[in-house]
Amino acid sequence: MVNWCGWGNENESYALDDHPFFLPFLEMKFKVRLSHRPPPEKPPQKIPASALKARTRKSLISIVGDDNFSEDGYLRLTHSRGKSYKDLVLLKDGHAGKIVDAVLFPRDEREILKILGMASKEFIEIIPFGGGTTVLGGVTPTKNPSLCVDMMHFKTLDLDEISHTATLDAGLRGPEIEERLVRNGFTLGHFPQSFEFSTLGGWVATRSAGQASTKYGKIEDMVLGLRMVTPKGIIKVLPHPASSTGPGLKNLYVGSEGIFGIITSATLRVKSIPKVRDYEGFFFKTFHEGIRAIRTFMQNGIAPAVVRLSDAEETAVSLALSQKKGITKEGLGSWFLQKSGFRCLLILGMEGNREEVTHESEVSRHAIKEFHGLGVGKSVGEAWMRERFRHPYLRDTLLDRGVMIDTLETVTSWNNLEELHRKTKEAIEKTIGKRNVRSIVMAHISHVYETGACLYFTFMAPQAKDKISQWEDVKSAATRTILEGGGALSHHHGVGADHAPFFIAEHGKEGAETVRRTKMLFDPSGILNPGKVLVRTRARKAKGN
Amino acid sequence: MVNWCGWGNENESYALDDHPFFLPFLEMKFKVRLSHRPPPEKPPQKIPASALKARTRKSLISIVGDDNFSEDGYLRLTHSRGKSYKDLVLLKDGHAGKIVDAVLFPRDEREILKILGMASKEFIEIIPFGGGTTVLGGVTPTKNPSLCVDMMHFKTLDLDEISHTATLDAGLRGPEIEERLVRNGFTLGHFPQSFEFSTLGGWVATRSAGQASTKYGKIEDMVLGLRMVTPKGIIKVLPHPASSTGPGLKNLYVGSEGIFGIITSATLRVKSIPKVRDYEGFFFKTFHEGIRAIRTFMQNGIAPAVVRLSDAEETAVSLALSQKKGITKEGLGSWFLQKSGFRCLLILGMEGNREEVTHESEVSRHAIKEFHGLGVGKSVGEAWMRERFRHPYLRDTLLDRGVMIDTLETVTSWNNLEELHRKTKEAIEKTIGKRNVRSIVMAHISHVYETGACLYFTFMAPQAKDKISQWEDVKSAATRTILEGGGALSHHHGVGADHAPFFIAEHGKEGAETVRRTKMLFDPSGILNPGKVLVRTRARKAKGN
Repeated sequence: MVNWCGWGNENESYALDDHPFFLPFLEMKFKVRLSHRPPPEKPPQKIPASALKARTRKSLISIVGDDNFSEDGYLRLTHSRGKSYKDLVLLKDGHAGKIVDAVLFPRDEREILKILGMASKEFIEIIPFGGGTTVLGGVTPTKNPSLCVDMMHFKTLDLDEISHTATLDAGLRGPEIEERLVRNGFTLGHFPQSFEFSTLGGWVATRSAGQASTKYGKIEDMVLGLRMVTPKGIIKVLPHPASSTGPGLKNLYVGSEGIFGIITSATLRVKSIPKVRDYEGFFFKTFHEGIRAIRTFMQNGIAPAVVRLSDAEETAVSLALSQKKGITKEGLGSWFLQKSGFRCLLILGMEGNREEVTHESEVSRHAIKEFHGLGVGKSVGEAWMRERFRHPYLRDTLLDRGVMIDTLETVTSWNNLEELHRKTKEAIEKTIGKRNVRSIVMAHISHVYETGACLYFTFMAPQAKDKISQWEDVKSAATRTILEGGGALSHHHGVGADHAPFFIAEHGKEGAETVRRTKMLFDPSGILNPGKVLVRTRARKAKGN
Repeated sequence: MVNWCGWGNENESYALDDHPFFLPFLEMKFKVRLSHRPPPEKPPQKIPASALKARTRKSLISIVGDDNFSEDGYLRLTHSRGKSYKDLVLLKDGHAGKIVDAVLFPRDEREILKILGMASKEFIEIIPFGGGTTVLGGVTPTKNPSLCVDMMHFKTLDLDEISHTATLDAGLRGPEIEERLVRNGFTLGHFPQSFEFSTLGGWVATRSAGQASTKYGKIEDMVLGLRMVTPKGIIKVLPHPASSTGPGLKNLYVGSEGIFGIITSATLRVKSIPKVRDYEGFFFKTFHEGIRAIRTFMQNGIAPAVVRLSDAEETAVSLALSQKKGITKEGLGSWFLQKSGFRCLLILGMEGNREEVTHESEVSRHAIKEFHGLGVGKSVGEAWMRERFRHPYLRDTLLDRGVMIDTLETVTSWNNLEELHRKTKEAIEKTIGKRNVRSIVMAHISHVYETGACLYFTFMAPQAKDKISQWEDVKSAATRTILEGGGALSHHHGVGADHAPFFIAEHGKEGAETVRRTKMLFDPSGILNPGKVLVRTRARKAKGN
């Protein structure tokens, strides 16, 4: 069962028993005791009753059938929030907030068309829902009545082995896609941290990036065509390998976060399963040298699958987390590394056929050597691979210890990367410091390009009394610093509700107006996922003009 | 001086003296004599006078200065047509048609803003102009008064050697860009056939593809950010390496063909100059086997710069063109190839550092061998490289011999490629045959992807009396066949005026409406390049609502 106030499945967690040095490490850094404050076992009892009128309920049931309509409180609650820090903290503290009035599970595009038609007439808010893993408030209703449209019945996968493409339905989750592709010798190569839960529809709607995006591309690099149901009809983008037919409409729909319509399927390019996978660890003395090495090999024509360089703070946290009791080889190794000044860990993963991996390995090792990197073997890389989907559970463990922990990300050119890294860390540290608590602010670069890279920040600090405004202050200071410092509002998390106030800063008045007008074209009643991407759509007001 | 009724420079041409077998070959195929009918030396004298009012002229001169305003007849004529078959035939026959009233050469964005502001108020048509090499009527005015805005003063190039990006002004031509980049160790890798004349602005506005796009990507794969002046202000897309900030607006402007605004500059990724260039020729017995070989190596993780496979008809034409008098090694070689059934030529060009080219060479040769291809050495590949920008001049030579000759292109998945090739050829042959003339219809694949490839058709036939409707019948039959057969309306030529009637067939009513509304947002007076992309913008009518 899905965890109502934390990541993933209810019966999974990230216990600290196997990580004996981690809590003491944090307590030492924060200079406070982190006592265990488990969340309530059950959701708050105050889930408001459904506000649907009997007539509306009846019409909806007539569209999707009895089995695909639910007003169950738990279901409505878990379909009304994503997995952002704010979402989880409010839920754990017993604040249900705005909740959708029903969850619908349509079975085909025709049913969605009918739902949208009816909702447009009655001004009922519609929230498209895939895996519900948004960390930016992308699925939160803003008013009642509102309906969540869960795409779980959309599960068709149609593989074209000759053209190396697959048409994937929106409701397919990561493992469902990979299992079915791998059986036929293919992979999509898209492994976001939310892989186990998030869906194709969500990936396309938010311009998602997988951990191996350096080789396989972001989702927008894979999508050739798509279908999207809007209140005004079904939009189709033909899946051509490329084209030159006027303004690029495909990318207008990719990243639309449910504000234009509900993406029902997309045709994406797939790849042959790599014959060889080579994941290794390297250490650099400085973040700067690690960055120089990565930039050198990326600009030398290779694209490893995973390139992930932690700064000194993140490396120290990783080592504290992985350290075992007693004297171990790993323990001695990391002691030696720290002692000799090697402070930044690089995970480098190459995938492909033997010759490709050998070639990439040669080019990358040459650059790593040039900048004094030190190979520490495959075990570090493989451990990262094993653990890579588990870290979000650790966030819940820490939340239960009263730790504010969140991540945020951006992307910028190589030229600006180190300065933006420094400025953003400083802004976060300074803002947290205002409440007289100590913090750990750390970052890594990943999703690497010839022209720049994604900077991914994690911040941790003891929670203050005003948990939400504490977090909001940090988020806002970091975002402002990133935008003023030349970074993008987001590299792969999206806009959602949390970044919506900054949309104009990124795209300008004209950019926001273009999006708003496009929304009005497809969704003149303004029912689709309001408050996401744009703060206010003004669609209903405009309608009266 | 620019050729007023043909390709490129007035003092260059493609004489047939060095190609003694070509004309006889065509005459044999067509079973007609192709006599020389040279075009008039000077443009028709009936260029209409400028329709500008004195007040308007004065205001325009006050914006751009005396030196950057011209109503000269020759200049207006050469700025009112592209280089399509229809353009050239009408010009050669003395039909000037609609001509712009003046040509402006603004010096900065501020001047463009003023021009657009004034034109919006007075409903004067504005046509952005780069190199004027459109083959789809992309720069033709639809009414008077109209102004051509030539971007030739926009020549800044700003290289970021660390991030491997360059910010290029719209008026930079291919050679100007490459010379300045190469001097610093870089290349853009963008070599469309129009390279010598076309501009950065035109490339971005039409989603252009260079001949080496298989490695370097189409222009939209290179553009990170851009600036565009619209009547409503300046649009900026920040040059992030990637992002996840809502609907993708960058690609809405790339490919907008001047209907939203005038692109003034773009930031693109650049590449280090390849250390090795390896261009070779191969022959296959069938088009099918050649396609299978290419698909195999493209789906095996490599991306050569140039992959260009001619079908049997195109190969025969190439051989007839290149055949010399007397007994030569090449002559014997091609006789032997034809005799042994090797009928399809592949040009394969690899670029990069030594290891990269070696790796690509191994992978591609393996696939070529699997499908019984035969290497014919470097001279064929190198000859293609030398000649690649000269072929458009040959078109004029043939036009002067009364030959209808034109090209059209599409793109589709591997799965559909051979069927679309067959159907499109048939449709063209059948349509030409209706006028009781014989034809040569040939094609090659180029611009190759993992998922499919561009199909590039050339058709030749003796001109009928009704030259223009003869061509229109062919164009329309081919386009209809392509669209019904699952191909794209265009892979890299764009939409312009000639493809505009088919825009809805490709994008649907909703797609066209999205573009129309976006245009109205930026250009409410509907002054910008009307009739391109969309048949009718209806902007002025809508204004009165």
